[in-house]
Amino acid sequence: MLVPSPAVLAFDVFGTVVDWYGSIEREIDALALGIDAGAFALAWRTGYKPAMARVRSGELGWTKIDVLHRMILDEIIDRFGVGDRLDEAARRRLNLAWHRLDPWPDVIEGLGRLRRRFMLCTLSNGNLGLLADMAKRAGLPWDLILSAEVFRHYKPDREAYLGVCEVFDIAPTDMMMVAAHHDDLEAARACGCLTAHVERPREYGPTVNKDVSPRPGNDLHATDLIDLARQLGC
Amino acid sequence: MLVPSPAVLAFDVFGTVVDWYGSIEREIDALALGIDAGAFALAWRTGYKPAMARVRSGELGWTKIDVLHRMILDEIIDRFGVGDRLDEAARRRLNLAWHRLDPWPDVIEGLGRLRRRFMLCTLSNGNLGLLADMAKRAGLPWDLILSAEVFRHYKPDREAYLGVCEVFDIAPTDMMMVAAHHDDLEAARACGCLTAHVERPREYGPTVNKDVSPRPGNDLHATDLIDLARQLGC
Repeated sequence: MLVPSPAVLAFDVFGTVVDWYGSIEREIDALALGIDAGAFALAWRTGYKPAMARVRSGELGWTKIDVLHRMILDEIIDRFGVGDRLDEAARRRLNLAWHRLDPWPDVIEGLGRLRRRFMLCTLSNGNLGLLADMAKRAGLPWDLILSAEVFRHYKPDREAYLGVCEVFDIAPTDMMMVAAHHDDLEAARACGCLTAHVERPREYGPTVNKDVSPRPGNDLHATDLIDLARQLGC
Repeated sequence: MLVPSPAVLAFDVFGTVVDWYGSIEREIDALALGIDAGAFALAWRTGYKPAMARVRSGELGWTKIDVLHRMILDEIIDRFGVGDRLDEAARRRLNLAWHRLDPWPDVIEGLGRLRRRFMLCTLSNGNLGLLADMAKRAGLPWDLILSAEVFRHYKPDREAYLGVCEVFDIAPTDMMMVAAHHDDLEAARACGCLTAHVERPREYGPTVNKDVSPRPGNDLHATDLIDLARQLGC
């Protein structure tokens, strides 16, 4: 088998590197609001793609994820019937829960091994401040934090993937997109990039069965980032 | 004395964090071209502000420093009479010398101490790929690499300083610009940011006497980054 040899690995973050479901559930639980914390996490995340779609279509001007998260939060707080339990300061604090997401257990070792051989960057729809806070708190050893915010285009817009190549002055075939989501990988592949699929069967919590079976289009399929490091010879 | 307490320290890089003169001199010396390596380094750097001015004025569209450095290099190579000694591949390699600049001796310890207490980012006119290569090679522990490239405005344009504040969602008074150059600090101050001046008396090499005396407008004046850490209580 031929081992791909990209110069840069670009990582999706929410779901691929960090466990948003478990982390948001933990933060909601800590507020003791008497609501289903897992359902709240899922509802918050469900609002994410439609909110970005309004930016991608041009209906909204450039709006960063912190602001989109807050728009969704204000809506679902009411839906869960706890609007009067959370004042402005509490909502601001809770909204920053996305800056405090925990990595999956394999991530620190996996990235540490990969980093010795490859340039590691993020390519996340999360904003730069969010990603910097998250990396500092969790000790994620990125060589460069890149975000849709830099390119003013949310994934899966081509501009995001090609923007990474431009930043590093490399051909798309020298970049490998690493993600747990097929739409992200498909869009990267359409730009000519290599792709690695990472299984994250519990991304949506313990009650949702996520299909993590390999798909033929990807150059690599890994159970986690330690497995990815192993397959890439690190 | 009141100690300033910013949330974010934003660092100028060329001259403040890394020794461009000594590093470029070393790379030129290694090529054994028989030219004055220090004079070559100074000439290359002298072309930098006029090149950026063409972008800042709008005469050139957005052009990253790697490209501006190459434009200047092609010109001074001829001026130093070694144009026929450097083919395309050699020029590309030499141009990347700016990705391989060495930090001043105090930098790793200084940043390491400051990082425990503050969010550390770059605010450099160097492009993202250059800054990422430099940080990886030298082990510079940035929490976030920011560049004029993100804001599509070179310092001292206000958009660069205010862009950092927007990324971190902070007021200008919560950001401290750290630099060895007064024009950079003055522009940051005009945006409402705090400023720390760092002495780098040998920035232009051993033969140039740089005035590093304190100026009253700055919140702090430090001999190096270890001294800055000490003054900020780290």
